[in-house]
Amino acid sequence: MTTLQWNAKQHRWIACDSVSSADRAVHYGDGLFETLRFNAQGEIPLWRYHFARLSQGLDALHFPIASQELIVQAMKALPMTERQSAGKLIVSRGVATRGYAIPQHPTILLLWQSFSAPSWAIERFPQGFKTEFSTLRLARQPALQGIKHLNRLEQVLARHALPMDCQELILCDTSGFVIEGCMSNVFMLKKGQLYTPALRQSGVNGVIRRWLMENYPVQEYAMQPEDLLQAQALFFCNSLNGIIPVRQLAQRHYRSDYSGWQQIVQLQKALESIFC
Amino acid sequence: MTTLQWNAKQHRWIACDSVSSADRAVHYGDGLFETLRFNAQGEIPLWRYHFARLSQGLDALHFPIASQELIVQAMKALPMTERQSAGKLIVSRGVATRGYAIPQHPTILLLWQSFSAPSWAIERFPQGFKTEFSTLRLARQPALQGIKHLNRLEQVLARHALPMDCQELILCDTSGFVIEGCMSNVFMLKKGQLYTPALRQSGVNGVIRRWLMENYPVQEYAMQPEDLLQAQALFFCNSLNGIIPVRQLAQRHYRSDYSGWQQIVQLQKALESIFC
Repeated sequence: MTTLQWNAKQHRWIACDSVSSADRAVHYGDGLFETLRFNAQGEIPLWRYHFARLSQGLDALHFPIASQELIVQAMKALPMTERQSAGKLIVSRGVATRGYAIPQHPTILLLWQSFSAPSWAIERFPQGFKTEFSTLRLARQPALQGIKHLNRLEQVLARHALPMDCQELILCDTSGFVIEGCMSNVFMLKKGQLYTPALRQSGVNGVIRRWLMENYPVQEYAMQPEDLLQAQALFFCNSLNGIIPVRQLAQRHYRSDYSGWQQIVQLQKALESIFC
Repeated sequence: MTTLQWNAKQHRWIACDSVSSADRAVHYGDGLFETLRFNAQGEIPLWRYHFARLSQGLDALHFPIASQELIVQAMKALPMTERQSAGKLIVSRGVATRGYAIPQHPTILLLWQSFSAPSWAIERFPQGFKTEFSTLRLARQPALQGIKHLNRLEQVLARHALPMDCQELILCDTSGFVIEGCMSNVFMLKKGQLYTPALRQSGVNGVIRRWLMENYPVQEYAMQPEDLLQAQALFFCNSLNGIIPVRQLAQRHYRSDYSGWQQIVQLQKALESIFC
């Protein structure tokens, strides 16, 4: 894993394994991140979705307007050696003096870490994921809804309780509505129709989630845990795993010979084709 | 401002202005902090309260048991030059490989930043603080309740909307209950009795808050905004500002010639005496 930092003056990425201990990412988690997957040509096929969420996050966190352009320039200048497989982009408000107050002219820090993407989850788990309901419930905070910010203690705590034989968890919010997985979004199929939880108060509005919603008829609504148990098929999705059916949620088993399972496999194939 | 890092092997603090870009504080805000004030002898009179909250936080975040001892040793070894006025201690889960999963044997990072404490708020604002209700509401997350963790985007967003003529804000939670200030806890006086909001779902259980509750009869309850407006006197408290009365909340003015105001000034004097 290499780590780079964007040097705006020199207009290039520079190898650097550290950040200032006065950086607001360290003190407050004051920033955003994206986890990106490249295709064989070193392009990010779903960049449009990543950038849309970054833009929404920059806006929600009151980053300067110029941050968007900074990110565009930096990502364009990312060397081909970094575009092999996958990477994580961190956008921090950077170094500032003490206190919560947002500096008027922050020096935005862009961090880049490339890494080897795992193969699509369906290749590693052809039998699908096993999952459980998490005992941790997501707080409802409309001010941070949908964005991928650096305050991730809820995910750290939820992930810590992942049973050994499970690959993901279903997280509900403190009002009991289904929101997402710990590392992915969740969808269900009922009579051939796709459904996904509405994310009005919490949750990350995933890249694959939005790609699905743009390309397929998906209904978003306030989903209950029972809805998932009564669905004919379920799947998780994220940028690294792709789309992966669920074989078991708590005591409920989902049949892989059901047409819904095949529908999910087709969605994964459609996603893979974008990365060819 | 100097920055130190604890070197457990050498058993001493080392000057170091950076942290690894793979540190979990950067990626997830996976850690805790305390802001401490020294007395003239370089001691931390309220250390017991700081350490109790740290311990609770380490436990809530599943840090190794040994982290407590690490902190005790490091704080004992803090050189006299760092004990002049005030400091911030950051406890991070440290460097780890990618992903939310908590490493089995984390290398805990202790960061220390000393700085000049401001004089007690009552000296700078003898007329008291002016405050408003924040439009940002705190999310309810029992798993993080009371502890002082590094996920502070709510405070960053609330602080951003602090009116120019105000020194603090009153934050309610998403259910409408009063919780705290942006940087401090809040108390009110009604017929000579002290009251403070219960912190069951959100909020930081402040050092001065607990000192007050141990030394004075304080009633904790689910407080509504109207309660504050109907109170005879209000005050904020934190480790750096001490105890400071409120002169105005929204349209409500609190009289400084009222006995409640004098009662608050007495509490501040009692607190100051601990730091002599």
